[in-house]
Amino acid sequence: MEFKRICHRFGCCLRSTDPRDSLSELLLSCSRNTEQIPTRKAGGIIREALENEVNVMQKSSSVDLVTKTDQQVEQFIFTSIREKFPTHSFIGEESVAAGQPCVLTDNPTWIIDPVDGTTNFVHRFPFVAVSIGFVVKKEPEFGVVYSCVEDKMYTGKKGKGAYCNGLPLQVTDQTDINQSIITCEFGSDRSPEVVDKIFSTMRKILCIPVHGLRGVGTAATNMSLVASGVVEAYFEIGIHCWDIAAAAVIVTEAGGVVMNVDGGPFDLMSRRIVAANNKTIAARIVKEIDIFPAKRDDAPVEEKQ
Amino acid sequence: MEFKRICHRFGCCLRSTDPRDSLSELLLSCSRNTEQIPTRKAGGIIREALENEVNVMQKSSSVDLVTKTDQQVEQFIFTSIREKFPTHSFIGEESVAAGQPCVLTDNPTWIIDPVDGTTNFVHRFPFVAVSIGFVVKKEPEFGVVYSCVEDKMYTGKKGKGAYCNGLPLQVTDQTDINQSIITCEFGSDRSPEVVDKIFSTMRKILCIPVHGLRGVGTAATNMSLVASGVVEAYFEIGIHCWDIAAAAVIVTEAGGVVMNVDGGPFDLMSRRIVAANNKTIAARIVKEIDIFPAKRDDAPVEEKQ
Repeated sequence: MEFKRICHRFGCCLRSTDPRDSLSELLLSCSRNTEQIPTRKAGGIIREALENEVNVMQKSSSVDLVTKTDQQVEQFIFTSIREKFPTHSFIGEESVAAGQPCVLTDNPTWIIDPVDGTTNFVHRFPFVAVSIGFVVKKEPEFGVVYSCVEDKMYTGKKGKGAYCNGLPLQVTDQTDINQSIITCEFGSDRSPEVVDKIFSTMRKILCIPVHGLRGVGTAATNMSLVASGVVEAYFEIGIHCWDIAAAAVIVTEAGGVVMNVDGGPFDLMSRRIVAANNKTIAARIVKEIDIFPAKRDDAPVEEKQ
Repeated sequence: MEFKRICHRFGCCLRSTDPRDSLSELLLSCSRNTEQIPTRKAGGIIREALENEVNVMQKSSSVDLVTKTDQQVEQFIFTSIREKFPTHSFIGEESVAAGQPCVLTDNPTWIIDPVDGTTNFVHRFPFVAVSIGFVVKKEPEFGVVYSCVEDKMYTGKKGKGAYCNGLPLQVTDQTDINQSIITCEFGSDRSPEVVDKIFSTMRKILCIPVHGLRGVGTAATNMSLVASGVVEAYFEIGIHCWDIAAAAVIVTEAGGVVMNVDGGPFDLMSRRIVAANNKTIAARIVKEIDIFPAKRDDAPVEEKQ
């Protein structure tokens, strides 16, 4: 399936082509109405691709995967948004993988994961999300996470609340860690020192004890489950800004908190996050996390190699 | 919500009250048509309960939970089936917890988990299954797993194939463990010696490496994902016959295999299972499993205490 065919079929879902007042219009409209953002149509591309043979390529290792769909969906989203906002900046997982810079400036910036949960996508495990975050002066303004197999559209806009398919989201009021479910992931780094820390942390949290550990294989959906009041917290080291930019707003607008894994302020480019229903649960999780180094998303390229 | 009200509202979904030829009729009809088994209506009770406050009780520990819904659904299923098959035997999770014997004889026996994934149910994590298996002369004959939030009805009948919502199921033909996703669970036993073995096994399997580890919080659904070709295998020590009786038929009828965690023959009462798409993947998983003791489901009661 060629990109041109996708564009032809879905067209552009932005309503106006006049960029002059489109940012303020966008910011006004994106609390519950996300028609200006091509998330649902991107999800449609993914769902259609799930019906066909998936062509898998490896990135950094045999467990770090990418498909043509990741690239096609990212291009579709970039093109759609750029038509309306030609001066905005973009950070996207596949563009960065292809060598584009990953630097967050004060310019309005769209941070995009076209297919969050690529391994799930490859295996048709039913959690695959399109994640589109919008950041102005380095502050997340709104986020949209579309869990496209479930057909759940999570949205959050700063100061305007969070929603799933138009219904308001609210984190749980649980403050007892023993009554909580925590989401986390094993990640795609299989180096012994990283796996040691991940297993050590999971074990300590499991044996606090908590009701259970879960993980659906996408950070954006794990965080949306925090916002939905299904689980109390999610933590991870090694995720990227495109995995969490959108869902961070959704969690905070649902009444939750986001912070660094050391309890410090949330830093979108740090590759570290605790997202929780409240500070009490977040602080309890922070106490158990064995931190390991992960190069910042905005580190100079030579440092990352 | 009282049990009487449930019965009144849903009525009995078995079509005939004449028990004389009903077993052969049942065996004939239960490959794709499960109308004789009250699974969907049991799922309806669960879905309705998810809309209301859940009243949680603890069983063996603070992480081993039961709710009134577990008990109501089991009673509903037992009553519905017993009306039609008064001579059949029953094994159900909540009846055994209440002191009923857990012994498998040659008599036709229904093995039931009314709510597989009770912790998920309590938190509204979206995988909760009704599991109904039917065993004759200790051999599984058919099984029905209804993942009631997803509205997926998995069925399998010996020699007649496996289906999900009427569409045939087929395991993957993957023989490369490196290209596989494996499902597993942390379980509800937090004793250090058990947690040690579970984490050690998970770590070894993760680092073979496989594409990923997943677990949706219910054995019946994890196994149905094997049958569906979404994941390649599922393994667990400590599950019970009611978690796996139904799904074991679904996996084998979808072309997969079930065996003991030591590679020996599958034993429904042993509390040990590997379910996989084929023997190659199963054998590779078996190599990595650190076995720990779990008292058989049919052990004398004094041994279990």
